Amino acid sequence: MTTNWDGNPSENLLLTPGPLTTTPATRRAMQRDWGSRDCDFIELTARIRRRLLAVVGGEAAAMTCVPIQGSGTFAVEAALQTLVPRDGKLLILVNGAYGRRMAEICRVTGRAHEVLEWPEDRPVDPAAVAAALEADRAVTDVAVVHVETTSGLLNPLAEVAEVVATAGRRLHVDAMSSFGAIGIEAGAMQFTSLFASSNKCLEGVPGIGFVIADVVALTCAKGNAVSLALDLEAQWRGLESAGQWRFTPPTHVLAALDAALDQFDAEGGVPGRFTRYSRNCAVLCAGMRELGFTPWLDDALQAPVIVTFRIPDGGWFRFGDFYDSLHARGIVIYPGKLTALDSFRIGCIGAIGEAEIRRALGVIAETVAAMRG
Amino acid sequence: MTTNWDGNPSENLLLTPGPLTTTPATRRAMQRDWGSRDCDFIELTARIRRRLLAVVGGEAAAMTCVPIQGSGTFAVEAALQTLVPRDGKLLILVNGAYGRRMAEICRVTGRAHEVLEWPEDRPVDPAAVAAALEADRAVTDVAVVHVETTSGLLNPLAEVAEVVATAGRRLHVDAMSSFGAIGIEAGAMQFTSLFASSNKCLEGVPGIGFVIADVVALTCAKGNAVSLALDLEAQWRGLESAGQWRFTPPTHVLAALDAALDQFDAEGGVPGRFTRYSRNCAVLCAGMRELGFTPWLDDALQAPVIVTFRIPDGGWFRFGDFYDSLHARGIVIYPGKLTALDSFRIGCIGAIGEAEIRRALGVIAETVAAMRG
Repeated sequence: MTTNWDGNPSENLLLTPGPLTTTPATRRAMQRDWGSRDCDFIELTARIRRRLLAVVGGEAAAMTCVPIQGSGTFAVEAALQTLVPRDGKLLILVNGAYGRRMAEICRVTGRAHEVLEWPEDRPVDPAAVAAALEADRAVTDVAVVHVETTSGLLNPLAEVAEVVATAGRRLHVDAMSSFGAIGIEAGAMQFTSLFASSNKCLEGVPGIGFVIADVVALTCAKGNAVSLALDLEAQWRGLESAGQWRFTPPTHVLAALDAALDQFDAEGGVPGRFTRYSRNCAVLCAGMRELGFTPWLDDALQAPVIVTFRIPDGGWFRFGDFYDSLHARGIVIYPGKLTALDSFRIGCIGAIGEAEIRRALGVIAETVAAMRG
Repeated sequence: MTTNWDGNPSENLLLTPGPLTTTPATRRAMQRDWGSRDCDFIELTARIRRRLLAVVGGEAAAMTCVPIQGSGTFAVEAALQTLVPRDGKLLILVNGAYGRRMAEICRVTGRAHEVLEWPEDRPVDPAAVAAALEADRAVTDVAVVHVETTSGLLNPLAEVAEVVATAGRRLHVDAMSSFGAIGIEAGAMQFTSLFASSNKCLEGVPGIGFVIADVVALTCAKGNAVSLALDLEAQWRGLESAGQWRFTPPTHVLAALDAALDQFDAEGGVPGRFTRYSRNCAVLCAGMRELGFTPWLDDALQAPVIVTFRIPDGGWFRFGDFYDSLHARGIVIYPGKLTALDSFRIGCIGAIGEAEIRRALGVIAETVAAMRG
């Protein structure tokens, strides 16, 4: 076993894009009640903000971390409606459902936007982004998804950031499925905001999203939001003024995230986690290929997060039966989300290592044998 | 001990308006990981929605329960921006900070609104509401706070509901601090929506709010919201179509709420909880009076939820020292929130009974003796 992870996952394996399998230590951290305005909890909040910022080296780049109650989408919406000015225009780079969701947020919140779209198995093309920014001077901001959870595709974030910075526009990064697992250095690439959540590669429990945002951009964002709860600037001011949340935070979820960050540090941070997830992904793909399944993406585009598999030919495979058989044995996978192709997805993130992937592969092998009859 | 509660609270006592002290059984329910799109979790969500609806008898009144990620304020904002039409006008009855917060939500989300205000120690006056509705025919909706957590004041909800129904307007009720403890019957009074959260009188952990809403009103509310995440109609449609959440729910928080609802049922529902909280409140007020503290509200206006005490005369009392002394012995209380008066608050809700209130009173007595010197 080459993984450096020595956790002890629960019996159920969640091989999904999240919520994921967590460790007992993370869940045990939820056994205490916290007063949300108490000094102990103010310290906990400050510590988590510092630790999340440090994951991308954001302190040195004059950024701050603003957590927000709810799911990752709540953080995406808070960032976009607060940081894209009311008279701004957002260019959204789309090659999957999460790019499309940002366009939906702009439509509902009334932000001018344009979509630049690629097929779901093709990465965003930085040269096309440069051309689009050259062609439309009204565009003030650009948004990109780092790892499209729809497919598992890794977009070329550094190259996109370079193009956007050269064109003098602001960049917003959906790092939901990459934060903590795939290296992002705020000092090495320019972005105005980056959003993620507690329950993906950080291996916390769901209930909190967060935005790593440029302090100057936040300062200038007062009054942009069209929501009270999702006003990122007001949330930030509240946290900065007295260390307190404007509205009741999910105290137990935050305690679990702090514990999960302890384990993240112990594993060696991003490099450690990347190594384990990469091994999980390699073992998963090799094992599935042996069983006759084909990953949908080219290897070079595959992030070690979640893998989309084609539905095999021959008519013997019904996803519902496959899912139920795995579920009956404590393994939860995910349906596909591609527009054009029948597929399913298996995640390789969470508090799991090679042993758990091999356990899942064993169950899949038996299921396939039974289904083929 | 006349309480029918036989829980076993953690060592820390949170005598606040929430998050509160929970039971070990509630916290233990967070020891399992759930796949958020899995059938087990779909069942859990459906069960919680049914149980919350039943607390106010909403099923018979053609209402539905729509949970929403985040704090109670997220549910308030989702209800108001979705259920008050874009061309509607909301009359907000204000006698504390939570009424004012609804006005702030309307300001930010761009809903026309008017405020009718009373001093913080006076209940909302139904006759004045009737007159206001008669005077301004543009008002389509009315919002009221059932128990103002600012002070602990119980507003005359049934009388307000009667006046609003007679005037043919829609009513929205902030039941954050009353839901589960003070009887509300959807069959006996008309309201269009009512919002609360997991971490108050239901004694769950924080992280989820919910709205009990009229199904017809929801059906007509499509496109009203100016937020994707806080669109209550879309959230409802998602839950109704496949039983699934649109965006990742806080799975562990929901499991804790389900466990908390088991204990709520075992205690005899609203009457049982009202009895325990009333006893807690009576013991607290009597004990504090003995120590020389005066509750700020008239007894007739005091809800058995949280009590505001005047800062005693004589210059010996400093709230910071008082708070720190209690905190050092595991008891967390709350600062005051009144506009006009220095005060502090002690809650009497959560998984606590008379024994815990008496424990707190003992610590307060010792602290007062030491402070008086």
